[in-house]
Amino acid sequence: MTSRTGRHFLHIPGPSPVPERVLRAMDRQVIDHRGPEFGVLGREVLEGCRTIFRTEGPVVIYPGSGTGAWEATIVNTLSSGDRVLMFETGHFATLWRQMAARWGIEVEFVPGDWRHGVDPALVEAKLAEDRGHSFKAVMVVHNETSTGVTSRIPAIRKAIDAAGHPALLLVDTISSLGSVDYRHDEWGVDVTVSGSQKGLMLPPGLGFTAISDKARAAGKSNNLPRSYWDWEEMLKPNATGYFPYTPATNLLYGLREAVAMMLEEGLDNVFARHQRLAAATRAAVEAWGLEVLCQNPDEYSPVLTAVMMPEGKGADAFRAVVLEKFDMSLGAGLSKLSDKIFRIGHLGETNDLTLMGALSGVEMGLAAAGVPHQRGGVLAAMASLRAGLDG
Amino acid sequence: MTSRTGRHFLHIPGPSPVPERVLRAMDRQVIDHRGPEFGVLGREVLEGCRTIFRTEGPVVIYPGSGTGAWEATIVNTLSSGDRVLMFETGHFATLWRQMAARWGIEVEFVPGDWRHGVDPALVEAKLAEDRGHSFKAVMVVHNETSTGVTSRIPAIRKAIDAAGHPALLLVDTISSLGSVDYRHDEWGVDVTVSGSQKGLMLPPGLGFTAISDKARAAGKSNNLPRSYWDWEEMLKPNATGYFPYTPATNLLYGLREAVAMMLEEGLDNVFARHQRLAAATRAAVEAWGLEVLCQNPDEYSPVLTAVMMPEGKGADAFRAVVLEKFDMSLGAGLSKLSDKIFRIGHLGETNDLTLMGALSGVEMGLAAAGVPHQRGGVLAAMASLRAGLDG
Amino acid sequence: MTSRTGRHFLHIPGPSPVPERVLRAMDRQVIDHRGPEFGVLGREVLEGCRTIFRTEGPVVIYPGSGTGAWEATIVNTLSSGDRVLMFETGHFATLWRQMAARWGIEVEFVPGDWRHGVDPALVEAKLAEDRGHSFKAVMVVHNETSTGVTSRIPAIRKAIDAAGHPALLLVDTISSLGSVDYRHDEWGVDVTVSGSQKGLMLPPGLGFTAISDKARAAGKSNNLPRSYWDWEEMLKPNATGYFPYTPATNLLYGLREAVAMMLEEGLDNVFARHQRLAAATRAAVEAWGLEVLCQNPDEYSPVLTAVMMPEGKGADAFRAVVLEKFDMSLGAGLSKLSDKIFRIGHLGETNDLTLMGALSGVEMGLAAAGVPHQRGGVLAAMASLRAGLDG
Amino acid sequence: MTSRTGRHFLHIPGPSPVPERVLRAMDRQVIDHRGPEFGVLGREVLEGCRTIFRTEGPVVIYPGSGTGAWEATIVNTLSSGDRVLMFETGHFATLWRQMAARWGIEVEFVPGDWRHGVDPALVEAKLAEDRGHSFKAVMVVHNETSTGVTSRIPAIRKAIDAAGHPALLLVDTISSLGSVDYRHDEWGVDVTVSGSQKGLMLPPGLGFTAISDKARAAGKSNNLPRSYWDWEEMLKPNATGYFPYTPATNLLYGLREAVAMMLEEGLDNVFARHQRLAAATRAAVEAWGLEVLCQNPDEYSPVLTAVMMPEGKGADAFRAVVLEKFDMSLGAGLSKLSDKIFRIGHLGETNDLTLMGALSGVEMGLAAAGVPHQRGGVLAAMASLRAGLDG
Repeated sequence: MTSRTGRHFLHIPGPSPVPERVLRAMDRQVIDHRGPEFGVLGREVLEGCRTIFRTEGPVVIYPGSGTGAWEATIVNTLSSGDRVLMFETGHFATLWRQMAARWGIEVEFVPGDWRHGVDPALVEAKLAEDRGHSFKAVMVVHNETSTGVTSRIPAIRKAIDAAGHPALLLVDTISSLGSVDYRHDEWGVDVTVSGSQKGLMLPPGLGFTAISDKARAAGKSNNLPRSYWDWEEMLKPNATGYFPYTPATNLLYGLREAVAMMLEEGLDNVFARHQRLAAATRAAVEAWGLEVLCQNPDEYSPVLTAVMMPEGKGADAFRAVVLEKFDMSLGAGLSKLSDKIFRIGHLGETNDLTLMGALSGVEMGLAAAGVPHQRGGVLAAMASLRAGLDG
Repeated sequence: MTSRTGRHFLHIPGPSPVPERVLRAMDRQVIDHRGPEFGVLGREVLEGCRTIFRTEGPVVIYPGSGTGAWEATIVNTLSSGDRVLMFETGHFATLWRQMAARWGIEVEFVPGDWRHGVDPALVEAKLAEDRGHSFKAVMVVHNETSTGVTSRIPAIRKAIDAAGHPALLLVDTISSLGSVDYRHDEWGVDVTVSGSQKGLMLPPGLGFTAISDKARAAGKSNNLPRSYWDWEEMLKPNATGYFPYTPATNLLYGLREAVAMMLEEGLDNVFARHQRLAAATRAAVEAWGLEVLCQNPDEYSPVLTAVMMPEGKGADAFRAVVLEKFDMSLGAGLSKLSDKIFRIGHLGETNDLTLMGALSGVEMGLAAAGVPHQRGGVLAAMASLRAGLDG
Repeated sequence: MTSRTGRHFLHIPGPSPVPERVLRAMDRQVIDHRGPEFGVLGREVLEGCRTIFRTEGPVVIYPGSGTGAWEATIVNTLSSGDRVLMFETGHFATLWRQMAARWGIEVEFVPGDWRHGVDPALVEAKLAEDRGHSFKAVMVVHNETSTGVTSRIPAIRKAIDAAGHPALLLVDTISSLGSVDYRHDEWGVDVTVSGSQKGLMLPPGLGFTAISDKARAAGKSNNLPRSYWDWEEMLKPNATGYFPYTPATNLLYGLREAVAMMLEEGLDNVFARHQRLAAATRAAVEAWGLEVLCQNPDEYSPVLTAVMMPEGKGADAFRAVVLEKFDMSLGAGLSKLSDKIFRIGHLGETNDLTLMGALSGVEMGLAAAGVPHQRGGVLAAMASLRAGLDG
Repeated sequence: MTSRTGRHFLHIPGPSPVPERVLRAMDRQVIDHRGPEFGVLGREVLEGCRTIFRTEGPVVIYPGSGTGAWEATIVNTLSSGDRVLMFETGHFATLWRQMAARWGIEVEFVPGDWRHGVDPALVEAKLAEDRGHSFKAVMVVHNETSTGVTSRIPAIRKAIDAAGHPALLLVDTISSLGSVDYRHDEWGVDVTVSGSQKGLMLPPGLGFTAISDKARAAGKSNNLPRSYWDWEEMLKPNATGYFPYTPATNLLYGLREAVAMMLEEGLDNVFARHQRLAAATRAAVEAWGLEVLCQNPDEYSPVLTAVMMPEGKGADAFRAVVLEKFDMSLGAGLSKLSDKIFRIGHLGETNDLTLMGALSGVEMGLAAAGVPHQRGGVLAAMASLRAGLDG
């Protein structure tokens, strides 16, 4: 029997549930994108982005997806034939590498096991070897949405500095921004890439790049063709709150509201909440006798938890049972993890009881799908949450 | 720490959560209540009500609350000085009695312990004694929202018939309609009173009365003054889908959508879902070592479960902890049950995972508030839900 | 050909168009009407009502229509057999009189021609004659929605005082409140009746009564039965922002937003805007060579303008043409004015260009329906609006 | 005095007003873009696009603006160094040319006076001269949003065929699709570019390209780098209703609803309505004694009308008066037309009375800003509308 009344539990690692307030803010007539009211909106959202990215520099907002912001980063900073250093942390790192290759970038792609983040020591070693400074950029996925592993950007920054290497640091925060502590300026990131539909609690449709002076300078002399994504074309009208082509006005309404909500809660509280929900989820996984994909506790993702299926049990059949019986969407394993893991999103507009509903659905789903496990994951999760509350 | 991001868990026994589809249907410009488009709307919702009340007769829709529909029932059928038979099933039966008294009705109020529904045998006995047929009506609350006890209307109907008594049967279904199987015509009810904000999944603001021929005939000769609530004034324009005074148009938009949703799910499926959620809730209560207020399993409410606090522990302090720490609203004990019970609503737009979130909140709240209990209520609830799914 | 794309022009004299902001404010989950968040909402809307009614005393908000608030006024202040003084200003005065009669009130109903408001001199004369003070109340419709005539309440108050008569002054402001300057305390009104769906820019579903001390005192000793409408039952929980039975929460969300919008614009600006739109409408009517129903310029309604059809032309056929061809709803003539007039609403969420769209629709409709008229009403209206802007 | 209550009149030539139904359809929780429910949505909107573009071939939907779809068209069909033929019809043709240049395309840009569309005879002449078939594409803006001139695509197609030239025909319909009759397949267009925020009545945020077999084949061998915009990457998952990266789900909800609305009205009725509103607007302009920018009646735009200011009067000051006094946004003159013209949008969710409100605002604004003109444009517009209705 299917229960389709009531709220769908959307627990993929993004798009994440959109708050009622944000949906309602978007449910408003579009306005003249050249008129004075728009200028106020534009300045507010651009300023709001700087607060969230923790930067004094410019943040460019594109009508587009996070994938578009990846492309914007490449075409605005690199030249065909440039060498870059990337790390195989999972599916999305692989996709970004493929994109770079399509733009004629030569990628040194350090192999990985999809269970660890970028090793700062390896970054330092690779860069130290590169005496001729042939690497123009180090490109890192902050939170690997495909694995639930969060790389440690400050340590990577330190590694680059330790190697005395001038490479740009380009970081994909598509699934981390707004969920995990992140500091564009303080951490010396050159381009931070993000999207609207994860920690920012918006529907998909906006891509972002935060840009350091060094990144912008790189764009003055690189040779990749560009028009839509061109930073300079954006930054001119952005100065007064406008855009060079028609912006996605209603998503900007939503962005204004989402930023307001995040600041009302307090960014530190937002991050702590994600940590608490993630810890409870891992407690449940452990109690079920299942294994978290991420192997380094320092790299556990606060955004999602990827769970390994017991040998011989397909993750997709399990997810189908959960969707059918409990009206919950879980994330699938991607490419080489296909059918081997499922992913539980616990990001954005999520709180304790919503998470408990989701974990209950997982536990009931394991039973319904005949997946061997220990009962009581939900009890462990509740104990973890309560410990977190008291802490 | 309080978590205020994410969805509030509204688990009082009404108002119940309003589906996104219903809210969106209401979020529409008002129309001319005398124009042709309104006539179509009016006929649709009046027909929809007949389907939900399971009657071929008229259902009157008032701008007002369920309390208003109580008053409408009294003033349209009774006369000052009339005797009626009522039963003390809880707080709402008591309030309806007080209202009747304010209208000059003489109420025989059979005492009760607030843990049982109306005893059909007692109905039969009381009516059999009343040889002169002085009782003009038997007034029963179908689902006592204050106690979580559902009286058995078909058995009460049989009792009246067995006594050969001509009294009207007036039934309050404010918190049962749309959640519990109910059949106005088949069960020989004369007036069924209801409201919008419970099983119908609407915001509060509409009251309903379904009317038998016998009830309508009684209104032709009774003497209570009335204007706003007068059935005859309503029924004339209702014939073509209109109302004698300005109707609550946007709530009618919502009513149209809510009825459509209920029929899409299928009324029988709706009722079965409520039974399943209620059984899971009671399983949790039992596992916690707490006691359900309702003592007769044949009268367990599918709408809400009232839970008795252990001796010496206040329910209101517990509820405050749950609201503060887990952003969930539970129902309070009313009048003589004040601070002695809490009530868990599991009605309307509610599904398995939402219920599990709620029960997790109760279990964590019991711990947080220092209420003695056994852990594992959520496990019992999950077992119950899964058994229900397989059944 | 019918054009059904685009915005319907709702120019009946209420329900009036609901602002996007108000609809969006209502499109929100219902909350626990016994919880702390509700208390804040309740206090805000009750305070907001006092500001709009311009009273320091209580305003009671009912789930119900304005008709319900009429009934509340009668049952809370009068006794069966009481004499009251009313004036036949139009359809709604007649309906209120009928309601009073149903409650056993003896109404002296001073005849009128439906083209004038209440004559203050007549009030004074009638009350002066009533040496025994048999009239318990003077009941006046402030703005007759059926005729577009606004009676002068301050002059009526003076007339009562000049006669030295103790009668209560009960005023229906259902279609004037929020559109026309109105001062409950300053004008010495005892009960002000209103509704949500006109100047307050809300959907229908709320009724209001503002209550003087004298009115409340009258309720302590009157004899009409009541429960739902009882003021004292309301005022007790209202003191902390709560209600004795389930309030229409989502309409209260809307009320909070609507009051905020009115105060942002400034009440005086709101009233001036209505005056300006009404003047432009009358200028158009005059230019068309048609006649405004209201004959006393001091009593022109800022809310609606009733227009007399030329002899031999039916208003309803004309209105049907306007609805069919131009997707605009105009108000019909009621009872004895049926088919003889049409009414143009220009209240609430209405501005200059919306009014011009509406008047263009009337002018095109007159032509399309073959109603004799002079072209150019819209030019006269524009001249009037521009004069108003410059003024 | 400013009137800010009531509906803003958005009469720029896009973004156009979004229907209440479309906004409400978008105001819904996001769903899993990999789940079965999304697949149904994806197939529906892709099929809907084919109906609107009138093609049997693929239509690609991008998260992005129309400008992005311009870029997609270039990078998927052309190679650096390719020659293309373009025509200076106005600001947007000029922008598209600049974009092509940024991608290394050699543009032959035939000068124009911004008051005419593309001359089919000139197309034929230019192509006939090009014996070596060096032009890889003819790139035409269907409806020049900056001038209100609509080029005649079928005649241009014929011209290309008459010249026996194999160039691709690439057409920008950003501001015409959904407002003007358009037939991708029948007219032999190779790529049709469009956007969401004009005739499709959606907020901005989606770009579209409809693709002929020939265009797709061209993309197999061209050399421009691309990833985000790559057609082949899109078309693979589109086959089952999915997308290669996160789509703008909520805009797709809106697209589904907008297509449904257009088909309910009937595309031919939609186009006829635009023609009728445009004719009425031109009638008003003529009556005011002002001049329509477009000089060829066969090329009058049904979407917008650009109006020339009298010598010595600035358009922007006039527009500011209209915005300030009448809360209406009109379009500005762009680049070389800056301050010389204003543009009246009459597209999408617009009907007769809304247009009349807008034209009244223009007429009052002309007076308020001291722009010499004849009164009575609104009368001429009404006469035109009525003639259109009767026709």
